Amino acid sequence: MTSSLDNSSKMREEIRQQPEALRRTIEAGIRTASELRRRFDKRRPRMVVLAARGTSDNAAQFGRYLIEITTGIPVSLAAPSTLTLYGSRIDYREALIVGISQSGESTDINALITDARNSGAMTLGISNEAESSLMKTVDCALRVCAGKEQSVAATKTYTGQLAALYLLGHALGAPLDLDELRRLPARVEAALKLEDQIFEAAARYRSMTRAMSIGRGLNYCTALEFGLKLMETSYVSANRFSSADVLHGPVAVVEDAFPAFAFAPRGITWPSVRELIERLGGLGAKTLVFSDLPALETRGLPANVISLLPNGRDAQPEDLCSPIPLIVPAQLFCAHLAASKGLNPDAPRGLSKVTLTM
Amino acid sequence: MTSSLDNSSKMREEIRQQPEALRRTIEAGIRTASELRRRFDKRRPRMVVLAARGTSDNAAQFGRYLIEITTGIPVSLAAPSTLTLYGSRIDYREALIVGISQSGESTDINALITDARNSGAMTLGISNEAESSLMKTVDCALRVCAGKEQSVAATKTYTGQLAALYLLGHALGAPLDLDELRRLPARVEAALKLEDQIFEAAARYRSMTRAMSIGRGLNYCTALEFGLKLMETSYVSANRFSSADVLHGPVAVVEDAFPAFAFAPRGITWPSVRELIERLGGLGAKTLVFSDLPALETRGLPANVISLLPNGRDAQPEDLCSPIPLIVPAQLFCAHLAASKGLNPDAPRGLSKVTLTM
Repeated sequence: MTSSLDNSSKMREEIRQQPEALRRTIEAGIRTASELRRRFDKRRPRMVVLAARGTSDNAAQFGRYLIEITTGIPVSLAAPSTLTLYGSRIDYREALIVGISQSGESTDINALITDARNSGAMTLGISNEAESSLMKTVDCALRVCAGKEQSVAATKTYTGQLAALYLLGHALGAPLDLDELRRLPARVEAALKLEDQIFEAAARYRSMTRAMSIGRGLNYCTALEFGLKLMETSYVSANRFSSADVLHGPVAVVEDAFPAFAFAPRGITWPSVRELIERLGGLGAKTLVFSDLPALETRGLPANVISLLPNGRDAQPEDLCSPIPLIVPAQLFCAHLAASKGLNPDAPRGLSKVTLTM
Repeated sequence: MTSSLDNSSKMREEIRQQPEALRRTIEAGIRTASELRRRFDKRRPRMVVLAARGTSDNAAQFGRYLIEITTGIPVSLAAPSTLTLYGSRIDYREALIVGISQSGESTDINALITDARNSGAMTLGISNEAESSLMKTVDCALRVCAGKEQSVAATKTYTGQLAALYLLGHALGAPLDLDELRRLPARVEAALKLEDQIFEAAARYRSMTRAMSIGRGLNYCTALEFGLKLMETSYVSANRFSSADVLHGPVAVVEDAFPAFAFAPRGITWPSVRELIERLGGLGAKTLVFSDLPALETRGLPANVISLLPNGRDAQPEDLCSPIPLIVPAQLFCAHLAASKGLNPDAPRGLSKVTLTM
């Protein structure tokens, strides 16, 4: 067996930097979030609008579930072209408009933020670049402190954006346990130890050209982000679905040996995800499950399982933080899959690090 | 050449019933919409939330753009699991919650509507079944009058839902031309005449197993719906994107002869869509464009073009109604593609007409 350590892409290095990056982002953000919490306590936003593209839009999907579930404030994902192409003026009074961007230089996101601010909405930025146009425009900011990201395939800035969105949830009054957040770097470290197992799993999918990536609820974002990474790094046509949507059409594509990937955290989404994994198994799919469930729960599934052990026996049954540790083995999977295909995940064909949208 | 008329699926029959179905839906709905308009004029919703799954969720994407662009009211697409799994109570005061469902029997959509109504929100239903649970629950209703739909692959109920969403836009005060709506059945009839050309185009894609479907803004829904139809009827792994998102990662999968499909209506999205078609051409993609642009505009594109002639020289430069005529040739494409593969588009493997979501 070739050691997985031979694969020395920037992407892999940056995946491994995530515990430190998260530690910095969380520590730096807790104070800001607590200040914001006092401000929002006086004047609670009527709705939250999240504006992002690409990987940051996957983080926004997470924020959407987290904020609606924990605060009851309605959340919408912005469609920037309603402003930048159609010139529409949306009534964002009493709304909080959040721009999420690794670089802070997405032209259409910045246009939307500027317009919202000019029309009286409160704006907040989440970015890895403190001096970016986004962060200079917004009323308040939650910084991702991931350090410079060099691989085009974003990893540590994605988990950093998720951490910033937890802090935003806290700011909006969500009953989140900050100590649970502080334990995240250790959980990511534990996930990184699965690398040898992931290296072997990736080798088994080396020849795939298409796949399905499935998650639900808080981990719908994880399915979206893994699918995007499969496309970017390994040129796999990855369809990404909530497990609730697969039976509304997409399941028809599944045939014998069809590559399928499912994210199965402990908690409320598990029965629905399990039912789908069993259904896919019946269709002959070649399924890999990323899970933090106890082994007993996944025994007998028609699938291989990459298991992150639960973070202690006393963890909450519904673990709001699982999207951060669960994406880590999936990121490693993509880095190793790309390497096994002889591709460079740091510089995929046709892509650049900052994308300008007309 | 085999005549395309040999392909006699229910799906194809129902595609051809769309002019009549639209005529009924529009005529029946105009009065209801005008009454609603007077009601909303007195009390404008603070936001609109659209709840749907599958094909109906693609219609909801259209509604999202249409309402934000034409009324400035913020629109969100509901994530039903925030209620049905996580039990969250979202603050929907002053909101209009719209359930969209062909059958009106989607359990999770109905749960969300019932909960919203109980907590004081105004609810509206859009369904093909007047006596369904959804339509009996809501405060007000816009009926799709497509007649019974037998094919699992929804077609006439989809365009009927789009028509109902135009009427909802009108009800919410959008400056929509009702005569433009009344001209839609004739535009769909014109699109149906392209069948021989589409039959030949579908034959050229017979062996594809994956594809990319692209639209933007008001026609993002068209890309979503065509991609879903490709999956359902022809078992193609179809990735669906806004043209604005393709360069944020997904373009990496495109290689020589990669099947790509783009929707290119006249108007404000065309420069962005054209730029992407040219980029895909440079990568060697095998691109088919569905367009209502004058031939002069698409000449020289690295793509084949299925052209719907503009509906008269005096049409509006920005045609809000294009998603209805543009999906029609794409529906026919799927019916013929399935037939050329020896598949039955009326009963795809693994699917049933009403999907229950746990």
